[in-house]
Amino acid sequence: MAKTKLKKIPTAAPRDVRKEDCKRELDKILAELDELQNLLYAEGKHAILIIIQGMDASGKDGLTRDVFTSMNPQGVNVHSFKEPTPEELAHDFLWRIHAQTPQKGMIHIFNRSHYEDVLVTRVHRMIDDKEAKRRMEAINDFERLLINNHTQILKFYLNISHDEQLKRLEERMEKPEKMWKYNADDLQESALWDEYMKYYEDAIDGCNEVPWHIIPADQNWYKSYLVAKALRDLFKSLKMKFPGLKRGKS
Amino acid sequence: MAKTKLKKIPTAAPRDVRKEDCKRELDKILAELDELQNLLYAEGKHAILIIIQGMDASGKDGLTRDVFTSMNPQGVNVHSFKEPTPEELAHDFLWRIHAQTPQKGMIHIFNRSHYEDVLVTRVHRMIDDKEAKRRMEAINDFERLLINNHTQILKFYLNISHDEQLKRLEERMEKPEKMWKYNADDLQESALWDEYMKYYEDAIDGCNEVPWHIIPADQNWYKSYLVAKALRDLFKSLKMKFPGLKRGKS
Repeated sequence: MAKTKLKKIPTAAPRDVRKEDCKRELDKILAELDELQNLLYAEGKHAILIIIQGMDASGKDGLTRDVFTSMNPQGVNVHSFKEPTPEELAHDFLWRIHAQTPQKGMIHIFNRSHYEDVLVTRVHRMIDDKEAKRRMEAINDFERLLINNHTQILKFYLNISHDEQLKRLEERMEKPEKMWKYNADDLQESALWDEYMKYYEDAIDGCNEVPWHIIPADQNWYKSYLVAKALRDLFKSLKMKFPGLKRGKS
Repeated sequence: MAKTKLKKIPTAAPRDVRKEDCKRELDKILAELDELQNLLYAEGKHAILIIIQGMDASGKDGLTRDVFTSMNPQGVNVHSFKEPTPEELAHDFLWRIHAQTPQKGMIHIFNRSHYEDVLVTRVHRMIDDKEAKRRMEAINDFERLLINNHTQILKFYLNISHDEQLKRLEERMEKPEKMWKYNADDLQESALWDEYMKYYEDAIDGCNEVPWHIIPADQNWYKSYLVAKALRDLFKSLKMKFPGLKRGKS
């Protein structure tokens, strides 16, 4: 039985947290992140992999925009994993993922990830429980490999309520500047909410190497603030410094 | 004989252009670019390829930071082309370049590019004039292929003076936060300045498909302003609009 109960975890900010405070704090953190990313790149000792998962309309794209726009794009790479191509499907499920992992000095952001391979695939019965278990083991092994090669992994699950999701999906049908995001399948998937939650809980519980940050995501300002803060705290823990003069070709 | 004479093209802003004005204008343009990039991504009709070339320390990295940091990194990709790997060298010179071209909706920035294959290679006599001519033809053909597939190409040559370059290379040896950029070969390459200029002029003159923007680059604030402005003007010319509701899977 799942230990994580997403329904019991808040989807909104606590009542005493004020939007203006979070926004001001976020601005401060973004300025810090800009400097810290430069240092990460200059030092070239650590790689950072950020995995963002969440239901449709949980705000994954907006998060990327809010938090990573402040950093030099030369050191930041966002990869959105879509439905696999035939070539990708002809390989193991980690093949296309591994190809996009960050080299030292870089921050890579996965907008969806290898976790889809134990989520949407289970909801739609493309794999059975036994295969899901095998995949979770492979995921843990894979993440350990990355960690052992100086990669810091941060995982964020954007926890929105089903009501908030439905509200946002409706907006996509109504607001001209959001229509391009509308997908005819979104409502069908939304109807499978409880199934998705069950497999998300499984995936979260199945991670031995890197735990998930479960982010209340009904308010974008709170979500972005929490993610930026977690990233800043990780950066600070690395005790990075500028390297001295090196010899020979870079 | 070369038509372009880089020595006769300014490396600095005109005297009557004020730094504060350019900085204020740049901020305005960056806000516009953020919106325009979102529209480019949403519409998914055009791709944008930005090629940045210039001598060591001409400010290519800084330009990327100044101009593209304001856009959603999900729609922006920076690729720095370094010395080719053995695998890359075992292919034609455009192989590794072609692999990094933008899909529709995306902006890709090349920090150095296929032009290195008619620059550093000529300075160091790795190819002869005949091969350089063949490569320029291949480059024109390649760029035409991209243009015909809805790619807009912008090329910027960052025109700094030799004196300014030497000043910046010295800084790299003195300032701890710049030392990581220092490369023992930089001064040797700098001594070949006139040779580089000759081949740059050749490459600039040899482009039939897409002309170069030659950007006075001794002052970073002027350089970034001019590049941002050129990109904004290109965006505006595309007459983009948000698409309506689409059916089926995205």
